[in-house]
Amino acid sequence: MRALVVSDGATTVRSPEDRESLAAVRDTPGLSWVDATGADPDALGELVDVFDIHPLSAEDVRSDLRAKVETFESYTFALLSEPGFGPDAGALVEQIEARTVGLFVGEDWLVTYAVEPIAAVDQIWSAAADSPAQFTDRGPDFTAYRVIRRLMEEYYRVIDDVEDHIEAIEDAVVEDPSPETLATINEVRADLLALRKLLWPARDAVAALAWDEGTYVREANRKYFRSTYDQLVELVELIETYRELASGSRDIYLNALSTSTNEVMKRLTVVATIILPLTFVAGIYGMNFEGSPYNMPELGWTYAYPAVMLGMLGVTAVMLAYFRQEGWL
Amino acid sequence: MRALVVSDGATTVRSPEDRESLAAVRDTPGLSWVDATGADPDALGELVDVFDIHPLSAEDVRSDLRAKVETFESYTFALLSEPGFGPDAGALVEQIEARTVGLFVGEDWLVTYAVEPIAAVDQIWSAAADSPAQFTDRGPDFTAYRVIRRLMEEYYRVIDDVEDHIEAIEDAVVEDPSPETLATINEVRADLLALRKLLWPARDAVAALAWDEGTYVREANRKYFRSTYDQLVELVELIETYRELASGSRDIYLNALSTSTNEVMKRLTVVATIILPLTFVAGIYGMNFEGSPYNMPELGWTYAYPAVMLGMLGVTAVMLAYFRQEGWL
Amino acid sequence: MRALVVSDGATTVRSPEDRESLAAVRDTPGLSWVDATGADPDALGELVDVFDIHPLSAEDVRSDLRAKVETFESYTFALLSEPGFGPDAGALVEQIEARTVGLFVGEDWLVTYAVEPIAAVDQIWSAAADSPAQFTDRGPDFTAYRVIRRLMEEYYRVIDDVEDHIEAIEDAVVEDPSPETLATINEVRADLLALRKLLWPARDAVAALAWDEGTYVREANRKYFRSTYDQLVELVELIETYRELASGSRDIYLNALSTSTNEVMKRLTVVATIILPLTFVAGIYGMNFEGSPYNMPELGWTYAYPAVMLGMLGVTAVMLAYFRQEGWL
Amino acid sequence: MRALVVSDGATTVRSPEDRESLAAVRDTPGLSWVDATGADPDALGELVDVFDIHPLSAEDVRSDLRAKVETFESYTFALLSEPGFGPDAGALVEQIEARTVGLFVGEDWLVTYAVEPIAAVDQIWSAAADSPAQFTDRGPDFTAYRVIRRLMEEYYRVIDDVEDHIEAIEDAVVEDPSPETLATINEVRADLLALRKLLWPARDAVAALAWDEGTYVREANRKYFRSTYDQLVELVELIETYRELASGSRDIYLNALSTSTNEVMKRLTVVATIILPLTFVAGIYGMNFEGSPYNMPELGWTYAYPAVMLGMLGVTAVMLAYFRQEGWL
Amino acid sequence: MRALVVSDGATTVRSPEDRESLAAVRDTPGLSWVDATGADPDALGELVDVFDIHPLSAEDVRSDLRAKVETFESYTFALLSEPGFGPDAGALVEQIEARTVGLFVGEDWLVTYAVEPIAAVDQIWSAAADSPAQFTDRGPDFTAYRVIRRLMEEYYRVIDDVEDHIEAIEDAVVEDPSPETLATINEVRADLLALRKLLWPARDAVAALAWDEGTYVREANRKYFRSTYDQLVELVELIETYRELASGSRDIYLNALSTSTNEVMKRLTVVATIILPLTFVAGIYGMNFEGSPYNMPELGWTYAYPAVMLGMLGVTAVMLAYFRQEGWL
Repeated sequence: MRALVVSDGATTVRSPEDRESLAAVRDTPGLSWVDATGADPDALGELVDVFDIHPLSAEDVRSDLRAKVETFESYTFALLSEPGFGPDAGALVEQIEARTVGLFVGEDWLVTYAVEPIAAVDQIWSAAADSPAQFTDRGPDFTAYRVIRRLMEEYYRVIDDVEDHIEAIEDAVVEDPSPETLATINEVRADLLALRKLLWPARDAVAALAWDEGTYVREANRKYFRSTYDQLVELVELIETYRELASGSRDIYLNALSTSTNEVMKRLTVVATIILPLTFVAGIYGMNFEGSPYNMPELGWTYAYPAVMLGMLGVTAVMLAYFRQEGWL
Repeated sequence: MRALVVSDGATTVRSPEDRESLAAVRDTPGLSWVDATGADPDALGELVDVFDIHPLSAEDVRSDLRAKVETFESYTFALLSEPGFGPDAGALVEQIEARTVGLFVGEDWLVTYAVEPIAAVDQIWSAAADSPAQFTDRGPDFTAYRVIRRLMEEYYRVIDDVEDHIEAIEDAVVEDPSPETLATINEVRADLLALRKLLWPARDAVAALAWDEGTYVREANRKYFRSTYDQLVELVELIETYRELASGSRDIYLNALSTSTNEVMKRLTVVATIILPLTFVAGIYGMNFEGSPYNMPELGWTYAYPAVMLGMLGVTAVMLAYFRQEGWL
Repeated sequence: MRALVVSDGATTVRSPEDRESLAAVRDTPGLSWVDATGADPDALGELVDVFDIHPLSAEDVRSDLRAKVETFESYTFALLSEPGFGPDAGALVEQIEARTVGLFVGEDWLVTYAVEPIAAVDQIWSAAADSPAQFTDRGPDFTAYRVIRRLMEEYYRVIDDVEDHIEAIEDAVVEDPSPETLATINEVRADLLALRKLLWPARDAVAALAWDEGTYVREANRKYFRSTYDQLVELVELIETYRELASGSRDIYLNALSTSTNEVMKRLTVVATIILPLTFVAGIYGMNFEGSPYNMPELGWTYAYPAVMLGMLGVTAVMLAYFRQEGWL
Repeated sequence: MRALVVSDGATTVRSPEDRESLAAVRDTPGLSWVDATGADPDALGELVDVFDIHPLSAEDVRSDLRAKVETFESYTFALLSEPGFGPDAGALVEQIEARTVGLFVGEDWLVTYAVEPIAAVDQIWSAAADSPAQFTDRGPDFTAYRVIRRLMEEYYRVIDDVEDHIEAIEDAVVEDPSPETLATINEVRADLLALRKLLWPARDAVAALAWDEGTYVREANRKYFRSTYDQLVELVELIETYRELASGSRDIYLNALSTSTNEVMKRLTVVATIILPLTFVAGIYGMNFEGSPYNMPELGWTYAYPAVMLGMLGVTAVMLAYFRQEGWL
Repeated sequence: MRALVVSDGATTVRSPEDRESLAAVRDTPGLSWVDATGADPDALGELVDVFDIHPLSAEDVRSDLRAKVETFESYTFALLSEPGFGPDAGALVEQIEARTVGLFVGEDWLVTYAVEPIAAVDQIWSAAADSPAQFTDRGPDFTAYRVIRRLMEEYYRVIDDVEDHIEAIEDAVVEDPSPETLATINEVRADLLALRKLLWPARDAVAALAWDEGTYVREANRKYFRSTYDQLVELVELIETYRELASGSRDIYLNALSTSTNEVMKRLTVVATIILPLTFVAGIYGMNFEGSPYNMPELGWTYAYPAVMLGMLGVTAVMLAYFRQEGWL
């Protein structure tokens, strides 16, 4: 647990571990930001007590619930998540994973809490520690906005990665369709599904911060959340578009398979239609009828063999021409 | 029928069977919880009379209606269900079954009623009988919440089981696709459908307990129902995700079948394309033309036979090379 | 046209055919129920006049419009329908048909009107004539409720019949899939579609009776309509479930066909792959090369023929083993 | 442009072509109906001016916009359309076309305007000219209702025609499925799509006339528009049903194709499985091994040939019995 | 950056590049229109300052966000886009691209801003510079309407182009189906998807301009935005129709492939069913049984060969007649 306190222009970073030091952070005039991580409910006991945070809110963060915004008496609680790729070694497509972060925005304090450290929080923490002016000037809700905007950038990064996969798929289904392609399409679709599940509630949560009366977001800062909301709407639409593109690729793949079966059948039919009749003719002249002038007299004709061979060649040529005209060759 | 009465710090468990003993339970100061089971409408007559419960509410429980919440003059009636697996011996996937339980939350009393005993009710009953403090401190609505949360755990357990089936299916469609796989997918989809049908109305019912004005849920306890509502939303989304995964598996299975047919066709085509022309050549040299120097003079050439055999070998080699290059072998 | 009049405890059944007798029915103190059938608009003229019924309402009944509830100055008009099976002799599945019935609920009178006699109306009529107490105690709206509940039972009966068809289909697609199965599935789906078209507006109509202010349904009787509404919601969901089950059966059927084609192809491929090479070998030794020690000397070797036959047997055995290992046999 | 003026019981039909005569029509006490056609915006200039019609409304009619209702200061503007079949000579199914008509309902006047003459308007015009009583008694809004009801009849006529096509398709897919059937199904689906696009906004427009406050529809005439609304809802549902039936027919057709391919494959497999082994046996006894007692001694056995022929016959019989048992023949 | 100032009937076009000249434009009595382009945020600094435009609005234009309307204290901000075709050289179908334009409508000024010059803005600019009367008479909101109507024309142009592609596809799938056809269908569907994504928010944005209270659109000009809204609704429906038509074409294409495979299979089956039995018969009479009167005595019969040949001809004729009757030829 760490705390950033800006009071009378002086910025201090503390590590409050007990109730007294936390209460001191809270009671210092000016703004303070407490950032906590860890899965142990007990370690948070003092934090929850000192800032009068509802225990169920902390549990919501640990339960990885979907994004939401709730306003309590002394703070607004925003539950959001940072997307990332899971360690799915064998998969063709990395799987989406999300880590939940809770932002508690009070009148003059901000508490952030996550089970594991969140990169977006760390970055904004460093920025606020380096140049506390923006932090103090615009209030804890603006700092919360900066964290959320940083989370949005992670979503853009993840969706860019998914877009790369979709483009690779679109090339693959045309150039080299294989059963793996379909598996990849399904994995990408699962990823897009997971992203949509994350973004839909996030959109609603940010909308609550941008428009709801009675939250701890100041009027002057709402415009920023509205801008984030517009980005979230774009992201959700982007995901829908990618889902349709993935469906289109699946159609093309399945059709490529049908086309391939059709082509294979055509080759077989061409070969069989040409060779089988010729083999039949050869079979005819392999018969052993004899002992009568009516029995296969042609076997003894002078030019019989060359004539038969030429006849076969002619039939083959005609058939090939016919198949070529039909577009089978 | 059994009754738990906490009055002046004393906890008593009674078995009220007639109108007087029930009225005594109701009129004892403090909190009371009456739990009834059984399908016989008449046996409930006194309970319905003494607690002024609408007869149609009791009938709703017996009719296994979908989850709902209704508030009457003297109580709030919540109809919910506990999921479980039916005794479907021959099926590949166990079928979802639900047992309905009715919770009647009054000012200082709670009545639970189900046709068959519900495990969740029994567990919370034991807990309340053992440590009545929480029961009396937070009121009958909190006890109802504890029962509902216990029911939620059953849903999680059932969905975990379904998830296992889906993972088994995802492996099966890739490694060993068989017609049974499709039947299993359909059964899992039917299970998910059944769960969704249970959870959607349950979500609305819990939302009514969490937000509606005028129910017998106290303001201080609403947060708990809201938390349950969030879990129900997560469950509904989980089910949607699993439904999409099951659809994806079905696509992969059907595609595996098409791919298999395509592969089979390719083998047949390879065999026929190589063997049929060779057989034709053998048929040629099996013909019986004779009696003229133009009729099959090659049959008597010194190296004719080895040459033909080598020629056949050469054609076969060229064709195999071609098919390998085309990716058919 | 018939009328049931309960006045001062005396129950009389009349057959009012003209304006005066109808007015007498209307003006008798106590409750009255007039039941009319017939397609002729003119025969209804007096009824419509005497009870001040809007002519378009009567026309709505004749036009078989979808279920609805409308409240006029002196009565509430409920349009509902009784489902049944049409006389579709040649069909695999009986087709759903509906007969419309209009219920006009006034302050102290009830008018029911249908083109053809409705079984549900007849049954409740008999019950009301036999024991008029319930009829008079709870008012004409409760009698309307009893008619509607009786109509619901018909829906349950029809849906049970459809369920039997679906179960028969589910067995058929697994055990004996045939093109007729698909036609049956489509007919069942059409039936479910027809039922849904009947039940959706009926649900809304009953909801209007259960919750809308200003209808001629008394507060005390609303709970009964609410209960009917809950049943209608269950019925609509049941139909959705059956539709999904029918879709699942269609998938299994279509897949059975693909699997069958795949199996057929495999057999053909196995036969061709084994027999064609053997036939080629037989063709080789049927060639007529001669006159040189290099031309087919093997034809004269002592054990040539048994050796070739054994070789063919060996190749066949190896191929069968390979196909068995591949799972093709 | 023509005008129907009913004043003091006298009915006159005029042809106002300039501003003065139009103003005279407008200013005559009693009711007046002006009907205009033509695509030229300028020719309408006086009409638009005299009746104070917004120029954009007239443009809406010319632009064939979707049905809608708008109320201006001095009139209610209803934009509706009359469906019909286009002159699509070569098509299997006639294509839906719609001609737009604008109805401007004022306090005591009605203006109808369309680019081309509309049959429904002409019919009601004749009826109003012949018996002006209904026209004057119920006001211009009732005349507008009669025009709209006449348009509805056209929709019923068109949908009946589409229903005939669907029934023809349902027979065709079972009895004689051909690629043209699928094209016909797609054309019917396009027709239903076009009808839905016409009827959905028409439904909303009529709903506005039936329920919206502030339009120029009198309270007493609203019931008629409500009845038309109910018919429109029925029509929209009918179209949905037909769309599902068309989808079902397409499934049956596609399945018939798969079944056919399966049957073709079975025949080929039966022929190949029976003939290929027999040909192989014939090939065996066509081999030329000789010069050793081990080389094909059976060729010289006394009953060898009849025995082989009987053996072949036996194998064929066994195979046919097997295929018959498997249901392939 | 350029400015159009109409003051006291005099129209001047200026190129304000610094704060002072911009403030002069703003402060000149009468109407002014400032048009800016460019991606550099800094270059806009003065414009944003002088007209008190929120910086995030300018950023919205640069971010290509979806269409929207927002009203601030001193102006209404409308974000819309002009569609066009991207430079996708190799594609069968040109890809949709959109360029975003922001319109800031103040009391007596209009600011338009886009990253790249927009043709619609340029055209209306020229028109306003040539005849400033309309510009000054109806206010900056009417000029904004003219720009938006011009953008709509671009949408119609683009959709016309897409319609051409769809008609080409509909011909292609019937006359010459090829794998490229499916790719083209998918590209057209992607285009329609992109257009829908542009038009849906545009529809909502124009609706806000047409109906919302508190924007800088005057009551008298609202009718024009309503008309644009109706056009947008038509466009959205047109796109839905085209999407269904594209789906129908895809079905026909896929079915053409299945039909083709079916036809190919039939040909193969016909050839094999006729030739294989004949080849078998020829094989029979090529067998070498001898040395016994029972061994192939028919080989020596006088008319054996012609009889066999005639028999083969007869079998072939019967089979061809059978296949013709079955509709396979």
